[in-house]
Amino acid sequence: MTPDTDQLREQAEQALRARELGVLGALLAEHEPPEIADLLEREPHAADRAVLYRLLERDQAVEVFELLEPGQRRELIDGLRDDDVARLFEEIDPDDRVQLLDELPAGVAQKLLHGLSADERELTLPLLGYPKRSIGRYMSPEYVRLRARLTVGDALSHIRHRGTDAETIYMLPVTDDERRVEGVVGLRELVMAAADELIGDLMVEARTVTATEDAEAAARRVVDEQLLAAPVVDGEGRLVGILTVDDASRILELADDEDAARQGAAEPLRRPYLTVPVFGIVRSRVVWLLVLAISALLTVQVLGVFEDTLEQVVTLALFIPLLTGTAGNTGAQAATTVTRALALGEVRSGDVLAVAWREVRVGFLLGTLLGALGFALASLVFDVHFGAVIGLTLVAVCTLAATVGGAMPMLARAVRADPAVFSTPFISTFCDATSLIIYFLIATWLLGL
Amino acid sequence: MTPDTDQLREQAEQALRARELGVLGALLAEHEPPEIADLLEREPHAADRAVLYRLLERDQAVEVFELLEPGQRRELIDGLRDDDVARLFEEIDPDDRVQLLDELPAGVAQKLLHGLSADERELTLPLLGYPKRSIGRYMSPEYVRLRARLTVGDALSHIRHRGTDAETIYMLPVTDDERRVEGVVGLRELVMAAADELIGDLMVEARTVTATEDAEAAARRVVDEQLLAAPVVDGEGRLVGILTVDDASRILELADDEDAARQGAAEPLRRPYLTVPVFGIVRSRVVWLLVLAISALLTVQVLGVFEDTLEQVVTLALFIPLLTGTAGNTGAQAATTVTRALALGEVRSGDVLAVAWREVRVGFLLGTLLGALGFALASLVFDVHFGAVIGLTLVAVCTLAATVGGAMPMLARAVRADPAVFSTPFISTFCDATSLIIYFLIATWLLGL
Repeated sequence: MTPDTDQLREQAEQALRARELGVLGALLAEHEPPEIADLLEREPHAADRAVLYRLLERDQAVEVFELLEPGQRRELIDGLRDDDVARLFEEIDPDDRVQLLDELPAGVAQKLLHGLSADERELTLPLLGYPKRSIGRYMSPEYVRLRARLTVGDALSHIRHRGTDAETIYMLPVTDDERRVEGVVGLRELVMAAADELIGDLMVEARTVTATEDAEAAARRVVDEQLLAAPVVDGEGRLVGILTVDDASRILELADDEDAARQGAAEPLRRPYLTVPVFGIVRSRVVWLLVLAISALLTVQVLGVFEDTLEQVVTLALFIPLLTGTAGNTGAQAATTVTRALALGEVRSGDVLAVAWREVRVGFLLGTLLGALGFALASLVFDVHFGAVIGLTLVAVCTLAATVGGAMPMLARAVRADPAVFSTPFISTFCDATSLIIYFLIATWLLGL
Repeated sequence: MTPDTDQLREQAEQALRARELGVLGALLAEHEPPEIADLLEREPHAADRAVLYRLLERDQAVEVFELLEPGQRRELIDGLRDDDVARLFEEIDPDDRVQLLDELPAGVAQKLLHGLSADERELTLPLLGYPKRSIGRYMSPEYVRLRARLTVGDALSHIRHRGTDAETIYMLPVTDDERRVEGVVGLRELVMAAADELIGDLMVEARTVTATEDAEAAARRVVDEQLLAAPVVDGEGRLVGILTVDDASRILELADDEDAARQGAAEPLRRPYLTVPVFGIVRSRVVWLLVLAISALLTVQVLGVFEDTLEQVVTLALFIPLLTGTAGNTGAQAATTVTRALALGEVRSGDVLAVAWREVRVGFLLGTLLGALGFALASLVFDVHFGAVIGLTLVAVCTLAATVGGAMPMLARAVRADPAVFSTPFISTFCDATSLIIYFLIATWLLGL
């Protein structure tokens, strides 16, 4: 399908340049929403994106909108007329509506909510009651629930009657009189069963998520457990919504975007790279870069303390980037591995000591290996004393860097911060300063300075 | 559900320590496969994992197995008796079977294949014919297809008859006499429709993937387009399998694992962190660390060239970590953003010039900002000449680092290498050496050395 999209892009560019809006509209009408979303994701000019989006037919516009990233949704809204926004807002799903409200200024959000039809507002307001970043804001309140005493035949006609607006009918929660979830049954099982079988006999134990739970953790579970959807319950186990695997995947993709960006010490763009203006990219990076540069002033201080030592043996300066670099790399490896393991739920904050102890050993082994090599090389080129300085420093800094790199994300999680904020560059900067101190202490000691 | 799992873990540990295998077996039988998979993912001792797994009931063992990561599947296989392995191999899905074969030594794989029943072997062999990393190896060959001329009623009885072993019946491909895909219809649409409607009237255009396509790209599309499943076709558009969204999510999770690890300059562990022996972790990191350390010898060389300059002005050494660090951070930011954009398909290799030009501007803006600050600070503490050296160096290295950081992953993709191999540490090491050269050239020029 990729070549198709490239062709669409070329044709669209031509029509845009020639301002042939009729041709463009016809071209868009011929294509599927995913292709149009892809086109919008790669169009670098904001004005052209707005033109393209306004040319879409009504149904197409809704479907395309639901495929876009949050930042891009907001941008398109900004470019539409008020009545178009109101219509779009009425037609998208309640969970998409809640995500959009989070993007918009409070005043605009209030106005949009007031403009909603009573039905849709009633579906939307409960979701807004859940805390930000909880799965309650991402679930769908439109589901079909069954009762255990129904026969398969009755259940199917109930589904035919009530299923039109439901987010999914492939996973059907079974509830009691108090809406408490007793189990779930798949549409597949209903279709394969005889008409007189009872839902209560077909249903299996439900894998539920709680509405106040962290959205990423809940979504990760739905994907990991290979569920099509999970019932979302309140504190008393009562059904309040449903989380489908495609919504869960979408949540994880945004979370992974965030982690990837933070690991590289940038804020997530939340929209396709090519659609972000240069200033937007600068904004996503400048704060982190400044913080890191200011922290790096520490290394200037440390070296200032040892300036006399440096003047005595300028050769020491030659190895500074090698040593700080290796420490940074070792720390980055540990931090990356542990951050990912935390994201996947493979380790929890309680495992901090187990993780630190593993990383002490890993760092020591890596340091010993690199240290032996460093000792051999530096002894050959300079002398054995100098070799010992380099070798010992490598052992010490690798051990320290791996331990700190592994422990930092764990500590972040323990204090409920995002483990990915202890990004690779952050760990590197920390390791730079500490490895310089270790280096010069070992050097003054072994070289008798 | 998390507290449940923690409780299960505690009880299992107790029973394991007391070697009460009967108690343990009963405990495991009471829990769902996802909980047991979670338990296995966090049990640090290989022997205990093997004991736990062998105690599972037959059906449970299959379900748990399918939830585990590839590395852990292989480990468990190694700990089972040959006949247990053969039985498990017979019962898992064909796509899981193919993944497992890729993990095993060729001899073992051959033996297992020969031991398969004729039916299962016939399902498995076609998948093995597709290239590694293509979606053909991950698809399911067990699907139900419909014909356009069928009525809904006939289609439903066909599904009841043929659907038992199918991977999914929620998305049903519609094919012609040559098995070419004409469209798809959802089980939802069938259930909601009248019995005498025709499949041809209900079906919609199929979003297909091609069996030889890259597995990650195909999976990303299924998730991005929010499909429940996509028909997989051969070069002639004939149906050969089906890719479900849960398999697609699993592929993406493993791909993201790999990207995350490579970004931190480590190889992916392919199994839960706590289950990997310390030597295994060392192995995943040591090659990269060595390569980077050896590349960093370049920085020693560069500084060696400028040793005389350094002896004249030792103060220059104080800023080395700050400058190399800032260059590394700027490069890492760009590389991370672009690598992620490539993974998401937001940019393609053809966009290399567009990306490089954006990053030149971003880097120049960031460098100008940091350079102005650096100039001010260094002028205050030292003198204005020195300030100019620091300021100009920052402008130059940030521009270069962002451009290189952004362009490297694009070039990797263009030559069909994994963009994530140009990891943050790799970019940092490259930036270290180039920024030192720039620094000393500017210093010799401005300070008249």
